[in-house]
Amino acid sequence: MRLPDPPTFAPCPITLTTLSGLRAAGVRAGIKASGNPDVGLLVADKPMPMAGVFTQNHFAAAPVLLSRKHLTLSGGMVRAMVVNSGNANACTGERGERDALQMAQRVAAHVGCSAHEVIVASTGVIGHKLPMDKVLAGIDACVSELSGEEEAGRNFLAAIQTTDAFSKEAGQAVALTGGGSTHVAGIAKGAGMIEPNMATMLAFVGTDGQATVDELNALIGQIARRSFNAVHVDSHTSTNDMFLLFATGKTGGSTQTWSDAAMSVARRLAWLIARDGEGATKVTTITVTGASSDEAANLIAREVAKSALVRTALFGNDPNWGRFVSQVGNSRHVKNVVNLTCTLQGVTVFKRGEPTQFNKVDLSKKMAVDDVSLELHIGEGDGRFELMTSDLGYKYVEVNAEYTT
Amino acid sequence: MRLPDPPTFAPCPITLTTLSGLRAAGVRAGIKASGNPDVGLLVADKPMPMAGVFTQNHFAAAPVLLSRKHLTLSGGMVRAMVVNSGNANACTGERGERDALQMAQRVAAHVGCSAHEVIVASTGVIGHKLPMDKVLAGIDACVSELSGEEEAGRNFLAAIQTTDAFSKEAGQAVALTGGGSTHVAGIAKGAGMIEPNMATMLAFVGTDGQATVDELNALIGQIARRSFNAVHVDSHTSTNDMFLLFATGKTGGSTQTWSDAAMSVARRLAWLIARDGEGATKVTTITVTGASSDEAANLIAREVAKSALVRTALFGNDPNWGRFVSQVGNSRHVKNVVNLTCTLQGVTVFKRGEPTQFNKVDLSKKMAVDDVSLELHIGEGDGRFELMTSDLGYKYVEVNAEYTT
Repeated sequence: MRLPDPPTFAPCPITLTTLSGLRAAGVRAGIKASGNPDVGLLVADKPMPMAGVFTQNHFAAAPVLLSRKHLTLSGGMVRAMVVNSGNANACTGERGERDALQMAQRVAAHVGCSAHEVIVASTGVIGHKLPMDKVLAGIDACVSELSGEEEAGRNFLAAIQTTDAFSKEAGQAVALTGGGSTHVAGIAKGAGMIEPNMATMLAFVGTDGQATVDELNALIGQIARRSFNAVHVDSHTSTNDMFLLFATGKTGGSTQTWSDAAMSVARRLAWLIARDGEGATKVTTITVTGASSDEAANLIAREVAKSALVRTALFGNDPNWGRFVSQVGNSRHVKNVVNLTCTLQGVTVFKRGEPTQFNKVDLSKKMAVDDVSLELHIGEGDGRFELMTSDLGYKYVEVNAEYTT
Repeated sequence: MRLPDPPTFAPCPITLTTLSGLRAAGVRAGIKASGNPDVGLLVADKPMPMAGVFTQNHFAAAPVLLSRKHLTLSGGMVRAMVVNSGNANACTGERGERDALQMAQRVAAHVGCSAHEVIVASTGVIGHKLPMDKVLAGIDACVSELSGEEEAGRNFLAAIQTTDAFSKEAGQAVALTGGGSTHVAGIAKGAGMIEPNMATMLAFVGTDGQATVDELNALIGQIARRSFNAVHVDSHTSTNDMFLLFATGKTGGSTQTWSDAAMSVARRLAWLIARDGEGATKVTTITVTGASSDEAANLIAREVAKSALVRTALFGNDPNWGRFVSQVGNSRHVKNVVNLTCTLQGVTVFKRGEPTQFNKVDLSKKMAVDDVSLELHIGEGDGRFELMTSDLGYKYVEVNAEYTT
């Protein structure tokens, strides 16, 4: 059985605490049996504009319901974000909703703001009540450790992780014409609903540049669509997914200045999430072009990515064009496949309804890399979408079948 | 790594050749490298009514296109069926269409009927031209071996198989009020697109009872929906799927007499296909009830079945209610989940938005069987659907990743 080692990535020099106007902390509150950090706090010097996108799951967890409500009540002006890992506070009924509110109230009391200005996020096991004594003690401990140092930012990152095989962070500095620079920093956790009842993705992307709440709300949809909503790991959306975009406004630089950096930071985080997809050995970017619309391209790419046959072929470095094109043929969003061209790692393997002559051994070797490209040109229009998917190997089965509830 | 042994099933006393009016043959034509039987022929004494459902894949193989056309041209009155395995004659262009027609013409010449009265089916590797010399020689050999003996029926069954771990057959006898009996017999092959570019499912269900083409066309949709279209193995539909329903009319017994038997024969074959799902260790029947419509129930069940997390939990005998209910929560066909009840092997594990208290160890033991029941009651209406799905284990990855193209 081939069990891949988790890849290693160099720590990112730009972290959330690099953003001026932001302090962070992360502590070990004892929620996790492992004793790893599990409560984190992020506090802005003053209320800052924030936009959020949340899971569409009907079982949206209590913190998701609360944070969505708080963004509305506060008009998107947020002072602090509190996170716990080790327990998702999902499927916990009214008690869960009271617990999430109590977390926000505790932070508000410390920071001196309204509970509406506090966002709450949880990730971990579903269906268990939060150990509130530990959670509240953890929040108190975070307050006393709040700092703008790089280490504090890393402690916050550690506190949002669950079964992540590696940390997920990205950042960029954007030079300003007038001198100085604006920063964009992002962190994320998640790799699919890995362990029993473990909930998925949290992502925080912030800048110390300028933005209004309206600008952030306009931008976050565009970014989410091409980053976190362009990741396919296991056809399973969690109850706790949350992506927050915020701007402390401490430096110059309008939204136009830093939005491209935010997009690439978010896309990098999304790639890292796919790369950590439960024993994944690589990320395959499925690029569908020439579809009747962008939405059609999106749905065609997902039809291909959802196939366990496709994902095991990617794991096995098997240039198995038959699995790829037949899934395109299954999509209701393709009118006609006569013009389909399938290109794998730059090699065209299928064209005009028939396979091409290609060297399978050479192409298989080209597939044994971290980042594989599968291009599907439909030839019906201008629709385009890029989907990042993990492969499906033995480790996936081990992680998901051996660890029982 | 746990590699399950393929299960063994007692041979079915009723086979296709039990149906009076039908002769069969199966020979080794050398299309398969393994040397196993790979060309089969089924001939009726006289043209008989037949209905067929075929793959919806845009890459429908040449024999699918031809057989669909022949059913139309012949008004559904068919004299013979010729099958080859080892090569799907899919993605083979115009040459492939000529080859499929030539197979029908060769049979017609022997049997003394029009080529339109011959149905052609192929299963095997995609994208390779048929070795027509071997195929035609195989057809000739079949003609000389045609027989109504049980062994001939089994030879035909052997000739349609590819990577099936076990034979798939079912049959029933229906006693007639006036004495005597009518028979229903069925065979199938397929367990997902197992080997590289291997195409999927063929199913033949026949009776020696009475039926008109119109009656068969009305019946086949109902049967397919609750049998072969109620199987989920790998979210992958092949280019060659074909299900044929026919009646030789040699015995008494109207459609009403034998239609229930045909339904249970088809459902048994479908269960066997799910059971052979690429290293599957069990079949889980996901029963969605109380959905807003039957179609909604169907789509909710598929949302649950498509999750690799759900299927690995079933492999691991893990009563992982969080994975099951959160997938229901992901379905756009659920309005409200507050009334969702989830019952696994008769044990209610989730109710009114929260998990119940249940003994996980005992329930896990109850899941270690051939046939697992997962019931999801939505509480929105009367919609109902039963989906048979295989689990996802190490063997699946081995079969689909290790064997390279």
